Amino acid sequence: MSTIQANAASDYATVVRERHSVRHYDPSAKISESEIVEILKEASLAPSSSNTQTWRFLVVNDDATKRKLHPIANNQQQVLDASATIIVLGDLEGYKEIGRINEDAVRKGYMPEDFAKQFTENSLKLYSGLTPEKMKSIVHKDGGLVSMLVMLSAKARGYDTVPMGGYNEQKLIEAFRIPENLVPIMLISIGKAAVPGRLTARLPIEDIVSWNELK
Amino acid sequence: MSTIQANAASDYATVVRERHSVRHYDPSAKISESEIVEILKEASLAPSSSNTQTWRFLVVNDDATKRKLHPIANNQQQVLDASATIIVLGDLEGYKEIGRINEDAVRKGYMPEDFAKQFTENSLKLYSGLTPEKMKSIVHKDGGLVSMLVMLSAKARGYDTVPMGGYNEQKLIEAFRIPENLVPIMLISIGKAAVPGRLTARLPIEDIVSWNELK
Repeated sequence: MSTIQANAASDYATVVRERHSVRHYDPSAKISESEIVEILKEASLAPSSSNTQTWRFLVVNDDATKRKLHPIANNQQQVLDASATIIVLGDLEGYKEIGRINEDAVRKGYMPEDFAKQFTENSLKLYSGLTPEKMKSIVHKDGGLVSMLVMLSAKARGYDTVPMGGYNEQKLIEAFRIPENLVPIMLISIGKAAVPGRLTARLPIEDIVSWNELK
Repeated sequence: MSTIQANAASDYATVVRERHSVRHYDPSAKISESEIVEILKEASLAPSSSNTQTWRFLVVNDDATKRKLHPIANNQQQVLDASATIIVLGDLEGYKEIGRINEDAVRKGYMPEDFAKQFTENSLKLYSGLTPEKMKSIVHKDGGLVSMLVMLSAKARGYDTVPMGGYNEQKLIEAFRIPENLVPIMLISIGKAAVPGRLTARLPIEDIVSWNELK
């Protein structure tokens, strides 16, 4: 599939400008699992609240599972035709990994041990005391950060994506036995475009930016 | 300030790897308003729910306003020393701009007129019927998408950033007279690093990725 690589752009300004939501995919183009892992690994370089990395990825790339997801995702054709659809999830209990994350940072020499211990202790106290609503807002925002990188990291490799919020959340949770601690963030189909994405308009920048006080 | 440009990386893989949260800034380095606008314009190329672009940016870059924000942002020094801190907001009523956005897309030849009319009508019906909780989750996720691009677009120009969730939301709303339709997403300080950001550890990728069914 050399044509895929031919479309790859490596310059940041190009990647961000050439990313468009693509809804028509070449069903014969398969992205290898190892390449999907590379994309998700790169995306996980996103920042997150206290570096808790609450994002989780359920990758749907076998035909039977695509067919299971298709009606749940409002019968959108890209779920069947794209190489994979990534169900991005946010773990409301993901903050509990903070000790393991900080210990790893100490081992790698990124963080002094005393600092790590205190940081872990403070974080566990902080996050365990949050309301479910506040915790949800954190995993939603951090889920947005990582999802943006999934799309760019795909584009930088010559693939296209489309983020989807249009799906039946309750049916998704039931069909994929998603436990209560995991909340769906969005679906992202990824594959090789059969038809380029439509260009889209943007609000005038002066209408959305204020300086020092709200207009 | 040619040293700033000397640190600029343009390759996507480099930009994403060299972005680290920076908390110590050179207080003498100022980013021009036109360059901040360029960064926000590029960031606004992020995708969003039905392309509603509900993100709004309140840029704090004058000294008096930085001093006002500083205690609200838990006295974090970067608010004073960075060139600017961007208060990223999500507009719960931002979907009402969809007609204007789609009309612009028609004018630019991106969308057929009939399609645009139908799309606008459907979107207005859909979004006006959502619960406040659902609408909030959409602006949080879309706010996460755009915030990721703000940080990368800054890095690609040789600047550093730090996203902050640690601030007093109620005091922020009062001090900046943020109306009810705008919800704070996060603060992002942007400037020239005085001390490089700390490296951070990531969870093993196999612990956060599942294939076709949750592990």
